[in-house]
Amino acid sequence: MTTTAPLMNQALGLAAQALFLSSPNPRVGCVIATPGGQVIGQGFTQQAGGPHAEVMALRDAAAAGTDVRGATAYVTLEPCAHQGRTGPCCDALITAGIAKVVASLEDPNPLVAGQGFARLRAAGVEVEVGPGAAESRELNLGFFSRMLRGTPWVRMKVAASLDGTTALANGASQWITSREARSDGHAWRARACAVLTGIGTVLADNPRLDVREVATQRQPQLVVLDSRLQTPPDAHLFVAYRACTICAGGLFDSNFPARCAALEARGATVLHLPGQDGKVDLPTMLRALAQRGTNELHVEAGHRLNGALLQAGLVDELLLYLAPKLLGPGRGMAEMAPLAALSEGIELEWRDLQRVGPDLRVLARMSGHDQF
Amino acid sequence: MTTTAPLMNQALGLAAQALFLSSPNPRVGCVIATPGGQVIGQGFTQQAGGPHAEVMALRDAAAAGTDVRGATAYVTLEPCAHQGRTGPCCDALITAGIAKVVASLEDPNPLVAGQGFARLRAAGVEVEVGPGAAESRELNLGFFSRMLRGTPWVRMKVAASLDGTTALANGASQWITSREARSDGHAWRARACAVLTGIGTVLADNPRLDVREVATQRQPQLVVLDSRLQTPPDAHLFVAYRACTICAGGLFDSNFPARCAALEARGATVLHLPGQDGKVDLPTMLRALAQRGTNELHVEAGHRLNGALLQAGLVDELLLYLAPKLLGPGRGMAEMAPLAALSEGIELEWRDLQRVGPDLRVLARMSGHDQF
Repeated sequence: MTTTAPLMNQALGLAAQALFLSSPNPRVGCVIATPGGQVIGQGFTQQAGGPHAEVMALRDAAAAGTDVRGATAYVTLEPCAHQGRTGPCCDALITAGIAKVVASLEDPNPLVAGQGFARLRAAGVEVEVGPGAAESRELNLGFFSRMLRGTPWVRMKVAASLDGTTALANGASQWITSREARSDGHAWRARACAVLTGIGTVLADNPRLDVREVATQRQPQLVVLDSRLQTPPDAHLFVAYRACTICAGGLFDSNFPARCAALEARGATVLHLPGQDGKVDLPTMLRALAQRGTNELHVEAGHRLNGALLQAGLVDELLLYLAPKLLGPGRGMAEMAPLAALSEGIELEWRDLQRVGPDLRVLARMSGHDQF
Repeated sequence: MTTTAPLMNQALGLAAQALFLSSPNPRVGCVIATPGGQVIGQGFTQQAGGPHAEVMALRDAAAAGTDVRGATAYVTLEPCAHQGRTGPCCDALITAGIAKVVASLEDPNPLVAGQGFARLRAAGVEVEVGPGAAESRELNLGFFSRMLRGTPWVRMKVAASLDGTTALANGASQWITSREARSDGHAWRARACAVLTGIGTVLADNPRLDVREVATQRQPQLVVLDSRLQTPPDAHLFVAYRACTICAGGLFDSNFPARCAALEARGATVLHLPGQDGKVDLPTMLRALAQRGTNELHVEAGHRLNGALLQAGLVDELLLYLAPKLLGPGRGMAEMAPLAALSEGIELEWRDLQRVGPDLRVLARMSGHDQF
């Protein structure tokens, strides 16, 4: 008698190992087990262009010389049926003689959803769908967002004192939160497909915004919202190991082509995304980033861009580090217009509260934003 | 073989039952047990003027017809040796034939500390001090503050959105936090000896600031900081079941005596506590409140008084309810002068974090303030 839950939990644990790795592919884990429940192969999705979870698990079994014919594959997302950079996982499972596939979820891509299951069933493979669905979706919320909404899952990171101050009136902000909180923040950068900042932060702080405090095989790309293309070509953000996209608006002057060329010479991709006011149109930018494979967008910006994104309803989640201190007046989390009534506030739902070093980490989701 | 810990824990549990009751006396519990550890009497300190814990426990045993001779009394604070509104507890224990007293702590009052133990020992009662000391001190931190610092333990309650806004720019603030948070706030009022507010809040909101949402036999007194004596005699805060003290400064005008008389006619006590600028001197006010038996002072005030108390270093603890919403610009937690450097911030230590209804409750202590 085999119980599905522990094997699917193991597959979910494997999927989580793809957290920093598989972008823009979903984080998927696969466990192959005998009908009696003995695990004979396991794997998770590798970096883009590399093998998917199912192929890794089949290879794992093959490396041990184990015959998988008649076995069951527990996989946290529908096996792919299309020829991408890798062959279809369905075919690999069928060819290997897998008798049954237990999958958490259908692939959310409307163009392909269900085709993997259909192909497996047509080949005589038994298919069961559902176990681990909520966990798998949560782990891949960005992928689901990109597939179903056409925009990334947008997570805004803010570091503040307990009274909500992110910088003193004189601009001092380094550091309000602890080293532990900053390291933790790097783990959230690492899982994102892209980090978004604004030209204000680039000019004020000249940050690298790469992942340094946690080990990762992959750097998220950097996206700079820079309507007037003011990013200096010698900014620290230009590092060889990481892609950079600069989103420009339509406020061109005569030097614009030269500046554009200088930034492209530094390896940046310049996207022109002007809105009606000549500035970058934010929803257009998010769609453009999704089209380029951005599942999770990690925002580390100043209070202006934070405010613009929040007021446009484009932030899905707030990752807030609160330091145990009061700093009084200064810059807040986001520059927003005054509300006329309390009911106009942005409603949140707590997701997670925990201590990170001396600080408090609050993960809160904008109400309803995960319903897609 | 008797183990002290469970019996002292039971005494501490009894002490906690005096939380809303015993002010200005400390919260004390007492368990009387046979040498074999069988509980034969228990009690906790009643309201001011009523019996202390030891007497309640002796009465409990007597009511059951139980002989306490040779028994051990576990009591969470040194038994009193002085004749107050009640007779000395030491004498009651000695007369009853108690053989041993296990006490958590010495009485912190420097004038009496140790005298109870000395009296017991002189009468041949064995005395052990220490078990439960930290818990008993924590439960009576206000009493210890009043005895050792000469000022109350000052707890500031604030309700804010997650971005630190306590009122919109247009003044709207009812309600940012939930009904559950407001009820929880009443429990913190109930345990305080006094609730402090400012004339700004009285004039703007005309609140009662009494305990309504939790059951209590005792209402904390209300203290209004009102330098110019502007409290309207028909303010809602004048309720028959609760004492009210109004702290005035020295900025007298010709109508001052008449206003003073009108407020006293409503039952208020008016204290004149002018500082050098004519306004109420805050440290003087705290000392005056301590002299009048205030252990725990619960501050529910506007951002001006909050800021004045914080900047003067007079707040010991912050009780902060954070609603899961962003409200953007408006009034912050406290009106404070801008800092020149992050290192000038007010450092806190987290004490407790928990969800209260939909809100988050943060209890944080000003670093070092509990070291006295």
